[in-house]
Amino acid sequence: MATGQEPVTPPEQEQRTESPASPAAPAAPGPEDRAAEVDELRDNWRRALADLDNLRKRHAKELERVRAEERARTAAAWLPVLDNLERALAHADADPSAVLKGIETVRDQAVEVLRGLGYPRHEETGVPFDPTRHEVVGVVDDPGAEPNTVAQVVSPGYGADGNQLRPAFVMVSKRQE
Amino acid sequence: MATGQEPVTPPEQEQRTESPASPAAPAAPGPEDRAAEVDELRDNWRRALADLDNLRKRHAKELERVRAEERARTAAAWLPVLDNLERALAHADADPSAVLKGIETVRDQAVEVLRGLGYPRHEETGVPFDPTRHEVVGVVDDPGAEPNTVAQVVSPGYGADGNQLRPAFVMVSKRQE
Repeated sequence: MATGQEPVTPPEQEQRTESPASPAAPAAPGPEDRAAEVDELRDNWRRALADLDNLRKRHAKELERVRAEERARTAAAWLPVLDNLERALAHADADPSAVLKGIETVRDQAVEVLRGLGYPRHEETGVPFDPTRHEVVGVVDDPGAEPNTVAQVVSPGYGADGNQLRPAFVMVSKRQE
Repeated sequence: MATGQEPVTPPEQEQRTESPASPAAPAAPGPEDRAAEVDELRDNWRRALADLDNLRKRHAKELERVRAEERARTAAAWLPVLDNLERALAHADADPSAVLKGIETVRDQAVEVLRGLGYPRHEETGVPFDPTRHEVVGVVDDPGAEPNTVAQVVSPGYGADGNQLRPAFVMVSKRQE
């Protein structure tokens, strides 16, 4: 994000070697180059503050734009799912069983949309319980199962590591006493 | 969005009343207050430049965060639709016709999700053709219809004024010769 005008880099602070004027002495007129330096520094400072202000304003607008863009992109990914659902339903009178097969394909398409957005579905059983990906809704006592593993998925989860849209709701095998 | 440290407001440029030193004169030591002013201005400038740099970095992170947040929020709005679709399909063996009725409700829910995200569905016929909301896929010659109105909606549009996710694909009545 470049500003319209790149700020000048401040020079390294000069070592002042001049002997200071007496503190009691009245302000004598400074040399011309000193005055010019003050003017230049004040201009540079003003410009940097103006850049800061512009950057803040531009950023607020940019946030709004990015938010709307991402919402549209994400919502648009679902339109083909809805279109296909409606196309299937339009033939509902013909052969309901065949239509339901078609709707299963629409369901798979919806799962693919979520994967494409960065939220793959997960519904594995037998895996160790992981509090970052699973939410326990019950415990089952199955002596044959490894303790503290997912015995049953009640509702699938969506998301990748560190980016869970929703945890899977699971029944967990009882921890060994 | 406040920076950690509010920059000091630059003072109004002072009117210089001192007579300038001779241009040829070697740099004489400036008065102490002039030197202090230069130091202070240079510090202020440096601080403003550092603020600019920090602001740019923070903004880049914030944009990424907002993008991910909006994606998650939008995708999450669809999860109940998918859940209900799967619930309906789970009973497909029982009574296909009844299941299809249930799936029509899921379709309505999907349309509601889009409305909630700011993209209401539109599929009106008889309205004047509007290039910002309609895309013409064909022309019909219907002497009874008002010319240049939507005669048939092939596929519904989604979006509000100035925020179209997708235009409606329409057949338009022929313009009168």
